Amino acid sequence: MVDLLIKNVILDKKICDVAITGKIFSQIGENLEVSAAKVIDAGARYAITPPFYNTHTHHAMTLLRGYADDLELFDWLNNHIWPAEALLTEEDVYAGARLAILEMIKSGTVFFNDSYWHPVATARAAVEMGVKAEIGLLYLSIADGSTLKNEQNEALLDMEKSLPERVRVSHAPHAIYTVSTQRLRKAAEDAAVDGRRIHIHAAETAKEFEDCLSQHNATPIAYLNSLGVLTPKTILAHCVHLTDDDRKIISETGAVIAHNPVSNQKLCSGIFNWQAAADAGCRITIGTDGCSSNNNLSMFEEMKFAALSAKISSNDPKSGKAEDIFKAATVAAAEAFGYDSGVIAVGKEADAMLIDLNAPEMVGDYNLVSNLVYSASKSVVDTVICQGKVIMENGKVPGEEDIISAARSVCRKIEASVK
Amino acid sequence: MVDLLIKNVILDKKICDVAITGKIFSQIGENLEVSAAKVIDAGARYAITPPFYNTHTHHAMTLLRGYADDLELFDWLNNHIWPAEALLTEEDVYAGARLAILEMIKSGTVFFNDSYWHPVATARAAVEMGVKAEIGLLYLSIADGSTLKNEQNEALLDMEKSLPERVRVSHAPHAIYTVSTQRLRKAAEDAAVDGRRIHIHAAETAKEFEDCLSQHNATPIAYLNSLGVLTPKTILAHCVHLTDDDRKIISETGAVIAHNPVSNQKLCSGIFNWQAAADAGCRITIGTDGCSSNNNLSMFEEMKFAALSAKISSNDPKSGKAEDIFKAATVAAAEAFGYDSGVIAVGKEADAMLIDLNAPEMVGDYNLVSNLVYSASKSVVDTVICQGKVIMENGKVPGEEDIISAARSVCRKIEASVK
Repeated sequence: MVDLLIKNVILDKKICDVAITGKIFSQIGENLEVSAAKVIDAGARYAITPPFYNTHTHHAMTLLRGYADDLELFDWLNNHIWPAEALLTEEDVYAGARLAILEMIKSGTVFFNDSYWHPVATARAAVEMGVKAEIGLLYLSIADGSTLKNEQNEALLDMEKSLPERVRVSHAPHAIYTVSTQRLRKAAEDAAVDGRRIHIHAAETAKEFEDCLSQHNATPIAYLNSLGVLTPKTILAHCVHLTDDDRKIISETGAVIAHNPVSNQKLCSGIFNWQAAADAGCRITIGTDGCSSNNNLSMFEEMKFAALSAKISSNDPKSGKAEDIFKAATVAAAEAFGYDSGVIAVGKEADAMLIDLNAPEMVGDYNLVSNLVYSASKSVVDTVICQGKVIMENGKVPGEEDIISAARSVCRKIEASVK
Repeated sequence: MVDLLIKNVILDKKICDVAITGKIFSQIGENLEVSAAKVIDAGARYAITPPFYNTHTHHAMTLLRGYADDLELFDWLNNHIWPAEALLTEEDVYAGARLAILEMIKSGTVFFNDSYWHPVATARAAVEMGVKAEIGLLYLSIADGSTLKNEQNEALLDMEKSLPERVRVSHAPHAIYTVSTQRLRKAAEDAAVDGRRIHIHAAETAKEFEDCLSQHNATPIAYLNSLGVLTPKTILAHCVHLTDDDRKIISETGAVIAHNPVSNQKLCSGIFNWQAAADAGCRITIGTDGCSSNNNLSMFEEMKFAALSAKISSNDPKSGKAEDIFKAATVAAAEAFGYDSGVIAVGKEADAMLIDLNAPEMVGDYNLVSNLVYSASKSVVDTVICQGKVIMENGKVPGEEDIISAARSVCRKIEASVK
């Protein structure tokens, strides 16, 4: 008796059955003769693939989607984003995080790596909606060196022991230009003791790079390395402005790049050189960033932007191959966060999605991975499974209407308060 | 008595009713008291917006989607695309064009501007499936100066008089490097007499630009202008490699740019400078190009790539504003092809789509156009109307399964013949 049996599903161009017991793929083969608590018949119409793992986001920023676009960074942050964010309560962030998780599930993503205000609200949403997540303790210093919102981190630490294994807590110092040297060093020391990952924005803009050179006489990556921040459990978001030495440091320390092509282009931060990082042996994963600089959480779109920006950054159409991009969005990211998932194989954690092969954009049907990277969008995702649990079936997630309604109420509050 | 009444639909943030008589929006207002042959109740959940007009594509290349990716242009064309295309019969192209039209309708597009082999098959598919189209008489010379497949053009000319007004025929000389000077000049002369548009690839690659300079002592745009090719009825696909003088020529002649950001990036052709063209007063529209260099026909994706590539090409996040991009994908393109459509207003031709505002990616709901450009994908499109006729309702197009099945059969033939 298995918990879930997916019958007649396409895996590597063959029709087979996939059985899940607890959190694990227990059997894969043709015409499995097992009884199951639940059966999904894919009718040879759906393919089973790994789902996506989104390695850099600020989930509750769904609340600010479309609120301010097409502006200079400074104007955007100072006059639009920060005043709106200042209004957000813990319950508002909860509503925004639930909207984000709904959106990510509907586009085939089972994991997100988050840093944002009121992290306890985001953690609560992740626990309730059945996804994997890593939620950051947010360190963000102001000019006098004090750390803001410490009580929000305390709340997350209080919650941590009651979290399911799939939802974890990280250290999330915001960036080198918003966190003191002392606080960065302490994050590294704490991580060495408590085993948590570190999640930080790094080398995102030219200004950050230049300022770091003049203040610390080192590139952002070299500076972070000098403080002990870079380890295989460190997630470096953006990494647009890297030197050859920086790529060598990242590769040698085993730190993980979270590549955010859409946000980097929308804010004119620059273009990450995928090929140079890959050639240096860096571990590359993909993230959407938050919704106010993207403006969605679709890993389908992010993969296509990653593939195409790889080509233009190295002027080589052979860079950013579909297979490599898909791995970065799936198994490479799962591995980076210590989940034994991201591939459909016996013994692995049962994360999966069922893809509708009868969508017009999936024909020609020569190469499923190419179609996923270059042609598909969220509408091909029919069913999503996280750690053996079905969290979306036939395109529906429980409670969609309530989630959207609650998020809209927060938007009305923001609109009324700021305008 | 009107033909179609759309009740309780959101237009400019207000709930209203939209009535269509024949091909035309006949009334728009609150609580219209009219009887109608058909009523769609949008239940205050759907917004009505202009649909998309795709100004450069090779529709039947859906048959080659994912067939060959991530290759050098020369290898891709010579060893993969051309051998596969050589196998395509008129019925194969018909199957591929129907698949493409299905895909475009499902992603909210009502018009396509096409050039491809067996144009009569593409025209037939457009007529049957109720969309607007302009189909090119294909001129493509080989080394000895003779023109290939002339009998295919004859077949399209024979069909022309029986075409509905929404499906038209253009002159489509492929490009300056595949069509003789003499044939280009003749296309211009013919167009001046018969009033057809000209549809040509222009200034797509650096090689084309350099070769033209050395062969004709002129840029591709200046060369085309010297032959009389550039008029307000000329569609220039790509236009990646332009000088300031080229932009001035395009602006002054009134020729129309079909911008193809995805294809330009995937093939490493370069990045079109949106801001420079807009500043020069050029008319800009957006096209997906064919599926083997994209690999889909989604104008949602193409708009986002257009917006972001505008920003990175001018290093200014204020370039490629959502409103400008949306206009380029809708009303500017409709105007360029002589359709009095592309806006929702009384007296205009009734092309429209209904957008589901309850999709998670449409919340925050501050700015519909921003959400369409930066966040939405095809799944938000519920209903599509072309010249007053409903060609998709509730996400369904008649005959989807047969269309997909027929296209798959052609893929199997290609796979069996070439491998």
